[in-house]
Amino acid sequence: MTIKAVVFDAYGTLFDVQSVAAVTEAAFPGHGDIITQIWRIKQLEYSWLRSLMDRYADFSAITRDALAYTLRCLRLPRDEAAFERIMDRYLHLELDPDARAALNAMRDRKLAILSNGSSDMLNALVRNSGLDTVLDAIISVDEKRIFKPHRDAYVLIEEKLGVAPADVLFVSSNPWDACGAKAFGLRVAWIERVTPEAMARECERTDRMTPLTMFKALRMQMDDLGVEPDYRITTLSDLPKFVAAG
Amino acid sequence: MTIKAVVFDAYGTLFDVQSVAAVTEAAFPGHGDIITQIWRIKQLEYSWLRSLMDRYADFSAITRDALAYTLRCLRLPRDEAAFERIMDRYLHLELDPDARAALNAMRDRKLAILSNGSSDMLNALVRNSGLDTVLDAIISVDEKRIFKPHRDAYVLIEEKLGVAPADVLFVSSNPWDACGAKAFGLRVAWIERVTPEAMARECERTDRMTPLTMFKALRMQMDDLGVEPDYRITTLSDLPKFVAAG
Repeated sequence: MTIKAVVFDAYGTLFDVQSVAAVTEAAFPGHGDIITQIWRIKQLEYSWLRSLMDRYADFSAITRDALAYTLRCLRLPRDEAAFERIMDRYLHLELDPDARAALNAMRDRKLAILSNGSSDMLNALVRNSGLDTVLDAIISVDEKRIFKPHRDAYVLIEEKLGVAPADVLFVSSNPWDACGAKAFGLRVAWIERVTPEAMARECERTDRMTPLTMFKALRMQMDDLGVEPDYRITTLSDLPKFVAAG
Repeated sequence: MTIKAVVFDAYGTLFDVQSVAAVTEAAFPGHGDIITQIWRIKQLEYSWLRSLMDRYADFSAITRDALAYTLRCLRLPRDEAAFERIMDRYLHLELDPDARAALNAMRDRKLAILSNGSSDMLNALVRNSGLDTVLDAIISVDEKRIFKPHRDAYVLIEEKLGVAPADVLFVSSNPWDACGAKAFGLRVAWIERVTPEAMARECERTDRMTPLTMFKALRMQMDDLGVEPDYRITTLSDLPKFVAAG
């Protein structure tokens, strides 16, 4: 069974969503970290809840709503200029340091992104990072009007690339996304960025828990959803060897 | 327009999910609070994710999975006796202190629970709290094999009680549940247990954030989901007057 296409999640996988913290900290000194964590957690929750409620709004709108929630919850003033600066950072997220080399090493396969992001967001992000030259497709769930992990999102890979699910390796650092892709029938590599040992060290002192620790505990450990990814890797640079072997 | 039925969410609304903390603390000293918070957050996430993935498992199974995740994430030993003691506490949650009086004051309307809980869990919980004598129905989403906030869950109210959505007042302290019920077409009262002012005070010192603070920030503030509940109340005891007026 050959891997004919390698398809990546965008936010948290190819791009570092934590890299907005510099801008949130500049806008709201002392709150940069907690804004970033609550924002990301609510952004994902809203994508799931709106999908379930059949009240789809695109990821750009959801991302704004989640940021508005976060500032209101923390009682931080909603300064429009600061709000727009933070939102704009989402179009200029830092690329994972191993992403470019890993993608270049797999150019004999089809390479794509499948993301919850709207096409506008994804196109800007990919262009700003310079990845547009190595990707064969940038696939947004937007045309299905539902978010991952619903199967209608993952079915877009075959529709856009013409590659059967069993011949696709899907790569995500988001446990729920890795489980959703596996439940759908893709081959899946999960990027385990925070090992259980590191997590345990962080959680040892729960009296000194930070928002980032809570985020890691909630979002970066493999979930118990009745499915397991095929591979666990720790960085994107581990990926080419799986693909060459597969 | 008369309110003919008042239907309550169970977990977090009539029953205090934080009341498991005494048992988790006894089982794992120093970790009771963080176990309770992560457990509840993951329990809800799993209900949404499995609904989206079309991999339904009943709430009892999901609750176990979420607890297993929590202990693994914190690297706490999975002692089977302790695990079962904690799970059993979920069948003996403390009743909200205002619940009984509020229910008694509205006995001229149909009174029911609509909950994600499986029938076994709900029946035990209601019996153990003594609420079985005032409730006309205990409705579990289980027969629809999907969780709130999907519309198929809320449609059960009309199916079981024979009351049209516009004549139902749905009561929940869970913002996502209040929004889901409103999006479906019920009249909705949201119980705002943590005011924005109290939340702001808690979040002032993010360097001293506790797991409970993070939980309140994530789960107890009204969400930005494009719908708003009809009423905001702060305790269940505010409810009878709305019902009498409606």
